Amino acid sequence: MSEIETADELQRREFEEALEVKSLRRIISAYLNYPEAAEEDVKRWERSLTKLPPHHKALLSHLPSKFQKLRWCITENSYFIFEMLKMFEPPLDMSQDVDIRENQHLDDVSGSHHFSRSRNLCLCESTSTSGGVDCHCLAEPSSKETCNGKYPAPFNKEQEVDDCKSLPNQDTLYASSCCNGKVSSSPPEWLDPSLQLHVPLVDVDKVRCIIRNIVRDWANEGQKERDQCYRPILEELERLFPNRSNENPPTCLVPGAGLGRLALEISCLGFASQGNEFSYYMMICSSFILNHTQAAGEWTIFPWIHSNCNSVSDNDQLRPVSVPDIHPASAGITEGFSMCGGDFVEVYSDPSQAGVWDAVVTCFFLDTAHNIVEYIEIISKVLKDGGVWINLGPLLYHFADMYSPEDEMSIDLSLEDVKRVALHYGFIFEKESTIETTYTTNLRSMMQNRYYAAFWTMRKKTKATL
Amino acid sequence: MSEIETADELQRREFEEALEVKSLRRIISAYLNYPEAAEEDVKRWERSLTKLPPHHKALLSHLPSKFQKLRWCITENSYFIFEMLKMFEPPLDMSQDVDIRENQHLDDVSGSHHFSRSRNLCLCESTSTSGGVDCHCLAEPSSKETCNGKYPAPFNKEQEVDDCKSLPNQDTLYASSCCNGKVSSSPPEWLDPSLQLHVPLVDVDKVRCIIRNIVRDWANEGQKERDQCYRPILEELERLFPNRSNENPPTCLVPGAGLGRLALEISCLGFASQGNEFSYYMMICSSFILNHTQAAGEWTIFPWIHSNCNSVSDNDQLRPVSVPDIHPASAGITEGFSMCGGDFVEVYSDPSQAGVWDAVVTCFFLDTAHNIVEYIEIISKVLKDGGVWINLGPLLYHFADMYSPEDEMSIDLSLEDVKRVALHYGFIFEKESTIETTYTTNLRSMMQNRYYAAFWTMRKKTKATL
Repeated sequence: MSEIETADELQRREFEEALEVKSLRRIISAYLNYPEAAEEDVKRWERSLTKLPPHHKALLSHLPSKFQKLRWCITENSYFIFEMLKMFEPPLDMSQDVDIRENQHLDDVSGSHHFSRSRNLCLCESTSTSGGVDCHCLAEPSSKETCNGKYPAPFNKEQEVDDCKSLPNQDTLYASSCCNGKVSSSPPEWLDPSLQLHVPLVDVDKVRCIIRNIVRDWANEGQKERDQCYRPILEELERLFPNRSNENPPTCLVPGAGLGRLALEISCLGFASQGNEFSYYMMICSSFILNHTQAAGEWTIFPWIHSNCNSVSDNDQLRPVSVPDIHPASAGITEGFSMCGGDFVEVYSDPSQAGVWDAVVTCFFLDTAHNIVEYIEIISKVLKDGGVWINLGPLLYHFADMYSPEDEMSIDLSLEDVKRVALHYGFIFEKESTIETTYTTNLRSMMQNRYYAAFWTMRKKTKATL
Repeated sequence: MSEIETADELQRREFEEALEVKSLRRIISAYLNYPEAAEEDVKRWERSLTKLPPHHKALLSHLPSKFQKLRWCITENSYFIFEMLKMFEPPLDMSQDVDIRENQHLDDVSGSHHFSRSRNLCLCESTSTSGGVDCHCLAEPSSKETCNGKYPAPFNKEQEVDDCKSLPNQDTLYASSCCNGKVSSSPPEWLDPSLQLHVPLVDVDKVRCIIRNIVRDWANEGQKERDQCYRPILEELERLFPNRSNENPPTCLVPGAGLGRLALEISCLGFASQGNEFSYYMMICSSFILNHTQAAGEWTIFPWIHSNCNSVSDNDQLRPVSVPDIHPASAGITEGFSMCGGDFVEVYSDPSQAGVWDAVVTCFFLDTAHNIVEYIEIISKVLKDGGVWINLGPLLYHFADMYSPEDEMSIDLSLEDVKRVALHYGFIFEKESTIETTYTTNLRSMMQNRYYAAFWTMRKKTKATL
């Protein structure tokens, strides 16, 4: 009987891993598809231009040169993406044959980008202090010889874009060189183009969303947003933990860590900080920036080229952004900093996680839940008695408007209800306010989404007060 | 030869009319589908709730009653929509058989909501002063006996919603009565449910967008947005035309007039004002409010019920809004006020329109163009020498991200380029600034789109200065 159970479990695990490989292949395909999808847009814009009557076209004679500049920017972004992918070490055997039949409910998850369990995405041994969770962590600069060591010259003059106009159209990630002289080393096998899958538009958007997130977390341009969102959280942590010691730093969990900047800042403040992130899109990128950055400003990307809308000028759209704004390995982290890939509910509902954290920080995270009540229940469980929960964010429930044939569960509570549920799970309000902020916004755009984010500090009651 | 041409022209016109009937049927279907689509959402939310484990469900015991309140609000909104549709007089023979073959390129336009030519949507004779354009106009209150004369009591207490909880689920527009005692008269034949078409999600969104536009244009809640967008325009018109006479009022064209409030306000300021609007969704609603309103606050709608996201409280989501905030027929319009249904390019590129307008006002309009250069060219043409163009809006090009199999043309210029094109067409800048504003925003939402709209006054050079 026990043997049968083990066989069942094994089969289940193999199935889940196969799903994860499939989902990871899809994400890698989406990244690899970046130049092609971006080029498609430029071609569409060119086709529109050709449809104009001659007397209108004559007024827009500068547009062909703008399109060539856009192509150059796409090549630069693609180069960054490809270098990032090359540094990624899949935590799974990507060469395995994935043969999943329909009756195994693959469809339920084929669109997701999930981890079948929490994953070690680390180049070095994990230094996590939390126990029981495999995590990837901030490494010292890798000693591997790569072209990353050759820092491109700063690029910020339109003239320099112009210089590239006469280059052949480089719309493949596999270009072995590009016009600023950077040289790529050879890619791993799982990046072989023959393994590429069809990439739906929604995945194209996800890659562009990551590029905007890089600005938010790792560029000078993102400083304003970080001051709006991260600074109040960091100030609150400082206030709440005034006597931190490096020997025994307080522990802080950051679910929905995205590209890792907030978790890093918390670490630098003197906490044993762990970021948790569900999305492989995010983890591939945060791992690259945290573990493989050789110097601040190592990369130049062009985050705003994908839309012509709401631009005051073409130069705004074409402006370069240097990343990262800091060298993460020199930022002064506290021991125990780690990034943990996996679903928050699966990883942190594990009994080993109960009562181990001094603080939980959620920033633009709560509304990623299928079931926000479950999130709150787990946040309460993983906190020590008397531990604090700092939250900042709106309630734009990610699964609220999913019209998939099979319903995505989404429990879309009002802010009032969310707070009521928190009280039920043993929290006491310490502070509450509203913070006006943007999220991955183009600061020069004529349209900007504004959030009136709920910001609170709650404390988990000690047993004595329960 | 001439006879053959006439036959060709006739065939072409019949084809275009058939397209328009088809597109109008689709729009009416979308309106009729409103209660069904809204009910589908509530059912989805209910299904999510049933999936919760019992100890979570127990914390959300108020949600079933919220869902019943939502259903009551849907019924009220549906009642408003159905009364609106009943008052609509289609400018076409809706009973005609529409048989359009694929090779006639129906697909090119089947998703649009276009007029085959400018349309008289009027209950009375047009009083347009501009000549050559059939328009619908503001009528005195209709003498027809309808249930509209029975004003529902103001509704704004949650308790009153509660009173309806035990009502049977009224999810059809054809209910002959609803809980506040309003009685519908019988609907015209073209509203027969058997003529209803399949309604794609994008059309469901358009109906909800109209409901938000009603708040913007015709509710007290919209006053803040109108103060941001319309007031600067009205003040500018007052400044530019200080000596207006009622005998010979200056003429003002308002392309993209939406639900007509700005065009009405301009009329009340002492201009012979004409709104132009392409969308039947908009025209059906503006015609109802302008021509059939019997008193301010005649209707109560619930504009914010369609999303649970970013709500501070359920009461915010369920709050009623009285419309319209004014009685249009008593607003003090100037003779010559009219609303013209049709495509701006088709209607106003007609030679009869050249040099007839003292002012053109475009508010959130320029970016609706397939070809913004053409818009600017026509605005210049229809203005008298020395006439003024006031513009306010962002550049969120409507056709920019259409990934239809057959390209939608979209010329997405930066603001700099738009201004350069305007100079080419004989405009001189008089004033320019940026105005921060929202558009159909829920003022109590935790997420609000913010525009940094370009606001300018340009003057068309007189022949002497050209």
